[in-house]
Amino acid sequence: MAESAILVSHTRLQEFIVTALVAMKMSRPIAEVTAGLMVRTDLRGVDSHGIGMLPRYHELWQAGYIRMDAEPSVVRDEVATGLFDGQKGLGHYVSTRAMQACIEKARTYGLGMVAVRNSGHYGAAANYSMMALEHDMIGLSMTNSPYVAMVPTFGRKAMLSTNPISFAAPAGRHAPFVLDMATTTVAIGKLSVASRWNTPIPSGWALDDSGTPTTDPFVALKHRLGMMVEILSGVMSGAVYGDLFYRSDRQERRVQDVGHCFAAIDPVRFRPLAEFKHDMDDMFDALKGSPTADGQTRIWIAGEPEAETEQTRRRDGIPLAPALVAQCNEMARGLGIPAIA
Amino acid sequence: MAESAILVSHTRLQEFIVTALVAMKMSRPIAEVTAGLMVRTDLRGVDSHGIGMLPRYHELWQAGYIRMDAEPSVVRDEVATGLFDGQKGLGHYVSTRAMQACIEKARTYGLGMVAVRNSGHYGAAANYSMMALEHDMIGLSMTNSPYVAMVPTFGRKAMLSTNPISFAAPAGRHAPFVLDMATTTVAIGKLSVASRWNTPIPSGWALDDSGTPTTDPFVALKHRLGMMVEILSGVMSGAVYGDLFYRSDRQERRVQDVGHCFAAIDPVRFRPLAEFKHDMDDMFDALKGSPTADGQTRIWIAGEPEAETEQTRRRDGIPLAPALVAQCNEMARGLGIPAIA
Repeated sequence: MAESAILVSHTRLQEFIVTALVAMKMSRPIAEVTAGLMVRTDLRGVDSHGIGMLPRYHELWQAGYIRMDAEPSVVRDEVATGLFDGQKGLGHYVSTRAMQACIEKARTYGLGMVAVRNSGHYGAAANYSMMALEHDMIGLSMTNSPYVAMVPTFGRKAMLSTNPISFAAPAGRHAPFVLDMATTTVAIGKLSVASRWNTPIPSGWALDDSGTPTTDPFVALKHRLGMMVEILSGVMSGAVYGDLFYRSDRQERRVQDVGHCFAAIDPVRFRPLAEFKHDMDDMFDALKGSPTADGQTRIWIAGEPEAETEQTRRRDGIPLAPALVAQCNEMARGLGIPAIA
Repeated sequence: MAESAILVSHTRLQEFIVTALVAMKMSRPIAEVTAGLMVRTDLRGVDSHGIGMLPRYHELWQAGYIRMDAEPSVVRDEVATGLFDGQKGLGHYVSTRAMQACIEKARTYGLGMVAVRNSGHYGAAANYSMMALEHDMIGLSMTNSPYVAMVPTFGRKAMLSTNPISFAAPAGRHAPFVLDMATTTVAIGKLSVASRWNTPIPSGWALDDSGTPTTDPFVALKHRLGMMVEILSGVMSGAVYGDLFYRSDRQERRVQDVGHCFAAIDPVRFRPLAEFKHDMDDMFDALKGSPTADGQTRIWIAGEPEAETEQTRRRDGIPLAPALVAQCNEMARGLGIPAIA
């Protein structure tokens, strides 16, 4: 049985994360951006990628895999494209900078794309695609990761990570469309959330040693999409890609060196914004007005559940698993900062 | 049981399709481009989207839904973006023009994106993403379609089409990576191929009236991806989107008005081409060298089976189902042109 949650306000959560990151030598402005994105993730109900990651970041920092004091650099600033280097820091801040650059380029050229190499975990992919929405643009965000979870088609050994992709597009009356999907059968973060709450995971989430589930054609298609993300995030940026244990010439770059890729598209280059938004609303109305499946009462558009969770949690607080609060408090003792709750 | 195939050479297939399209009033240069793409599709073993579509195009032309004599127009030519109008023609030629424009823009700005509205069926999505490969670029191609096949999450009525997406990236020693996937459970064309050969379809390919399969979370994720394609191809271009029967204000645009979206990315804006290709090969080597699942002897990279089928069929001919040959010959009689075989 799941234990009852400890409610923490988003302002308290923000304060705790900033204090913890600063104690790990991150500069305060970068810590504030990072914490803001982590809290937004918890507000949206994506419990796998917010505060839940902080104890892991702390471990990686202690082990020397993350440089919390890193300042990202711009490697190439071309016409509609760019390449940033995360300098082995956490991914949130460099990704924010990269997406800002995409939006500026999209304003000038119609679209912009920035890849990032030598970065770290960037949290929820949707944090960056959603940045485009404030500018009435379409945003795209994707990342690889050194934590392999994806078995190639007809293989039996995990070789690529969950390689998530997020796509966000503005609507008018309706909440924006926000897709955020792992390209594996299930986001690996959902497994840690399940273990945090001590709940069983559905069958089919994990692979057995024979590699059988990967022969499923639907899973195979998702793998190919995962390869697309790996090519754009890992190979194009020059970051690590896939399972480094297989490559003798790159042993020294192991563990971190995550790659991301971001893009923004300005829809006004194609048609007037009001027309675009009208048709987004019109399509959502049509989808939401269509008949529901047996036992269902509502058709959801991607991003709607998260937008509604954000409203509730902003008002009522964010429910944290007691096991996570204990982990955070142990970390806080080690860092010499006040407990989270 | 499947009947034995009738082998037709790719040169004969090209000649037959050109003659048929010209008899339907398509100009010869446009017919040659269109036929070339259809034949390439059959050479690659994608039997659902090559000559197999020709009898359907003929029907749509007879019913007045396709203008075979259409000349596409450029509606907007902005910095790194563009918008083309297919003028209600078949989609192959305008899509070729649009992807050429993406490649030119990518050469100048690092990336380019062109949307197309008011078009028709464009065949295999990979035909256009693969055009980027000859220029050592990464290509992206997607389309919507007026033939609805996708039920929204928790819905029971098909509201969107299979909305395929294709992504192609060059490698060095290895065949390029070519993803071409429907964003529904199965490409609708595979159902017509199965019926053409009179073979049973696997369970799970079709939805029942209760809408049950769509509550599967994996299927739900693909639906969201299908929405991404619909937004970029249908809404952004200003073409038709989703199930028009739901929208009273647009009845007059029904049936055709397909939207596509294409993009090209020049990887040399991010890192030297030789490095990019080296790492693509390196990643493919790692994936292909990883252990195989029980009963499997080879790990395939997306695009490899099609590249190998193309070599075989270019040499031995393209196997056509007798039912399809009969359909083509009936069409040929109606058009007053020689039979296919």
